[in-house]
Amino acid sequence: MDTLRSFQLLSLFFLVFTFSASVFAFNMPRLGTQRKTTQHEPQTTSSISNLQDLKTYYYTQTLDHFNYRPDSYTTFKQRYVINSRYWGGANASAPIFAYLGAEESLDDDLPIIGFLSDNAPRFKALQVYIEHRYYGKSVPFGSMEAALKNESIRGYFNSVQAIADYAAVLLHIKKKLSAENSPVIVVGGSYGGMLASWFRLKYPHIALGAVAASAPILYFDTIAPQAGYYSIVTKDFKETSESCYETIRESWAEIDRVASKPHGLEALGKRFNTCNRLNGSVDLKDYLDAIYTEAAQYNHPPTYPLSVLCSAIDGASEGTDTLGRVYAGVVAYMRNHTCYDMDFYNRPTETHEGWNWQTCSEMVMPIGHDSKDSMFPPAPFNLNKFINECKSLYGVMPQPHWVTTYYGGQDLKLALHRFGSNIIFSNGLRDPYSSGGVLENISESILAVTTVNGSHCLDILVAKPSDPQWLVMQRKTEVKIIEKWIANYHDDLLAFK
Amino acid sequence: MDTLRSFQLLSLFFLVFTFSASVFAFNMPRLGTQRKTTQHEPQTTSSISNLQDLKTYYYTQTLDHFNYRPDSYTTFKQRYVINSRYWGGANASAPIFAYLGAEESLDDDLPIIGFLSDNAPRFKALQVYIEHRYYGKSVPFGSMEAALKNESIRGYFNSVQAIADYAAVLLHIKKKLSAENSPVIVVGGSYGGMLASWFRLKYPHIALGAVAASAPILYFDTIAPQAGYYSIVTKDFKETSESCYETIRESWAEIDRVASKPHGLEALGKRFNTCNRLNGSVDLKDYLDAIYTEAAQYNHPPTYPLSVLCSAIDGASEGTDTLGRVYAGVVAYMRNHTCYDMDFYNRPTETHEGWNWQTCSEMVMPIGHDSKDSMFPPAPFNLNKFINECKSLYGVMPQPHWVTTYYGGQDLKLALHRFGSNIIFSNGLRDPYSSGGVLENISESILAVTTVNGSHCLDILVAKPSDPQWLVMQRKTEVKIIEKWIANYHDDLLAFK
Repeated sequence: MDTLRSFQLLSLFFLVFTFSASVFAFNMPRLGTQRKTTQHEPQTTSSISNLQDLKTYYYTQTLDHFNYRPDSYTTFKQRYVINSRYWGGANASAPIFAYLGAEESLDDDLPIIGFLSDNAPRFKALQVYIEHRYYGKSVPFGSMEAALKNESIRGYFNSVQAIADYAAVLLHIKKKLSAENSPVIVVGGSYGGMLASWFRLKYPHIALGAVAASAPILYFDTIAPQAGYYSIVTKDFKETSESCYETIRESWAEIDRVASKPHGLEALGKRFNTCNRLNGSVDLKDYLDAIYTEAAQYNHPPTYPLSVLCSAIDGASEGTDTLGRVYAGVVAYMRNHTCYDMDFYNRPTETHEGWNWQTCSEMVMPIGHDSKDSMFPPAPFNLNKFINECKSLYGVMPQPHWVTTYYGGQDLKLALHRFGSNIIFSNGLRDPYSSGGVLENISESILAVTTVNGSHCLDILVAKPSDPQWLVMQRKTEVKIIEKWIANYHDDLLAFK
Repeated sequence: MDTLRSFQLLSLFFLVFTFSASVFAFNMPRLGTQRKTTQHEPQTTSSISNLQDLKTYYYTQTLDHFNYRPDSYTTFKQRYVINSRYWGGANASAPIFAYLGAEESLDDDLPIIGFLSDNAPRFKALQVYIEHRYYGKSVPFGSMEAALKNESIRGYFNSVQAIADYAAVLLHIKKKLSAENSPVIVVGGSYGGMLASWFRLKYPHIALGAVAASAPILYFDTIAPQAGYYSIVTKDFKETSESCYETIRESWAEIDRVASKPHGLEALGKRFNTCNRLNGSVDLKDYLDAIYTEAAQYNHPPTYPLSVLCSAIDGASEGTDTLGRVYAGVVAYMRNHTCYDMDFYNRPTETHEGWNWQTCSEMVMPIGHDSKDSMFPPAPFNLNKFINECKSLYGVMPQPHWVTTYYGGQDLKLALHRFGSNIIFSNGLRDPYSSGGVLENISESILAVTTVNGSHCLDILVAKPSDPQWLVMQRKTEVKIIEKWIANYHDDLLAFK
């Protein structure tokens, strides 16, 4: 299991052929607002009506905000999308809600992000959605592949440049709409939640406040424990079902035992109905690891996929052996397929390609397994190995201390207790990434809003009639906080303009 | 007078030969902590004893903090200097006072900056002085000339990279001294004062507070009136002596009248005892403009050079004509020379070269003359002309909106009233650059400390027995504010660590 890989594994399809990489050990679970296995589920009525009111624009964005070499003046087209249906207008200084895109195309976000559309009528807010550079339709030099292949182009692909993009786009929109006095609230989830909180800290003159949903801003450098993520996954499984946890815990050795026998891999492939021959037990283990972490991270109501998974494992007919139970879990979680594709989580997508580069340069999140009580075999994060692999892939060193240098994080409470304002750090405590989140109030207006049962990014997704009371309350709390920010802002506006 | 140039005029020596520039109209008075005409004056006893305790170090600094191209990993040696004589040590969490160098060699600052050395014993503070990239001994690629000549090297020479340097150096020092809990107070004057305030805003996790002396952070974009600088110069002269003001006001036309006669330039050169032939009346007018702005900006006690200048103009024997009076002022201000060098303020120094690049890329400060009541003939700031000249000199466009995009400034009070903390904006109201300064308290701990009679950067210079009471009080006020920051910090340290 020491080579266990996760969703964040560098895409073989793209990278092996481009950089002739060999073996990686990137144990970084996928970030993102929704789980891969629910993408393209039917949309709710509210998200459909929001989509109909959206207008798309392109801003001519500067490639390098922090340099004055002639090539830094290169520009690219950055996509942003506006819904002005509910906006109270510039004269009323009505607010602007801005969703800061993360490591995916805006097309993936628009149908599922509900925080803006659900609250726009109440706040008379303009809705703005801005795509992150190098994703979706905001890719310089034509394609992600071209942009990432070229070592002098991919360097500009990082979070500091991205939030400077957001600053430029937001100032442009405010100017275009003569909305200089409209307060901006930025919203983001997961990596986008980090961007939202960092944006409020670095550009307080542009954003009045930030909703940072499930933002693991402390999962950098030596702040959060490296095993934090996987210990919450373990805890989630244990709390859901002790026997499910036990079955999984025992399964890894069993997989290896079967694999090591003559024709063992074939036997394993048959038992798990894999679409292709297994090249090693690691293929199966990575696939299972991805399912378990995804199930824990996105354990959303009303379906609660983690419960579905464990129910199947526990509910297998008596006498079913460990591997049979685990397979029953796979079938229940992934639903019925003619066969199961071990590469499902490793398919080369732009999110894969892009985020792999981002983790190999700036966003080094040291996530590892420890042994204590874990459902997973030990696999500590190995920084040196990580650095070497990144170096051989991309030719440059990852900068593991840069995020904490530029954005801070060490002793966050001490640093921010009397500095800054207007950030909501929301977390569901069942989300493994909450182990790197801000779970305590930092000051009167830098606030943690947590829910015991919440999962990754749940609060900013489209509200549904089936949402449980605790989720409805979490969103209400957030709305009340934002109302106070805006009321204070309007007081200040009267006083200082 | 429409081509009137100032100290900031691009150095002919260097630039004409490098870029074959023709005519410039950069009306930007020099920033900096001390006036050119008092450089190399004898040092006070306190500064001498501080110099003896200084130790010099070099940090391997990253050239580009915001990029991951292979060439961004280039490094250079950045100089910093430490005096640990009074430091209370890491165990006591004793503070670190860090002077952020500006557009000059650290060698120029060390003998004159007194705020750190004068207050170190009281605070048991470690003194750190960090040189700004591309100045002094911190110049990448060997020399300022080489660094500036190369279009792909000079791009990294900007304030955003510079404050990221300071972040890296300060974290390095804290780590080296195990001083993670020692609060850092950053101090800077003029451009360095801007850097100090921006550093506190952008890196609050590294600096607990900032003393931003004479920092014209609002002299960007369209925030401060463009004529603000020169109207304070005019006001200073008028308040010192109405007749002195009148003489100077009348002199420009008189200079042009004489110059336009046959052999007029020769006659002018003779009357002003110039070392070289005048090429045009503009040479003399630029020289006088530089003297007047310098005299106003650095009108320090106990000598008060502006009074010296005006006393001489007013005190010329009865019947002396306008030009004779102006010349008497020059002699008194510049002291006796065998002749007067019209290029005195335009000599090519690294401050000249460096700051010219900085203003032509990032630090676009639109300073112009207006006509209303001014002692100077009208010469409004012409952004298009400025942009074209910079473009032809350096091949890239200045970015006049970037400073306000990245650091803010528009509606500063509205933006920061409930955001941020622990910045002192100190200004002397006789300093023409105070027209771009923060002169009002923004919040409980973002404070303006002003003095009616103060000049540029006076409060952070070495204290002298001759200092007037108002200056002593200004420094006391600043010290008390910092004491409160540090007391609060130690409370927070107990609570949160």
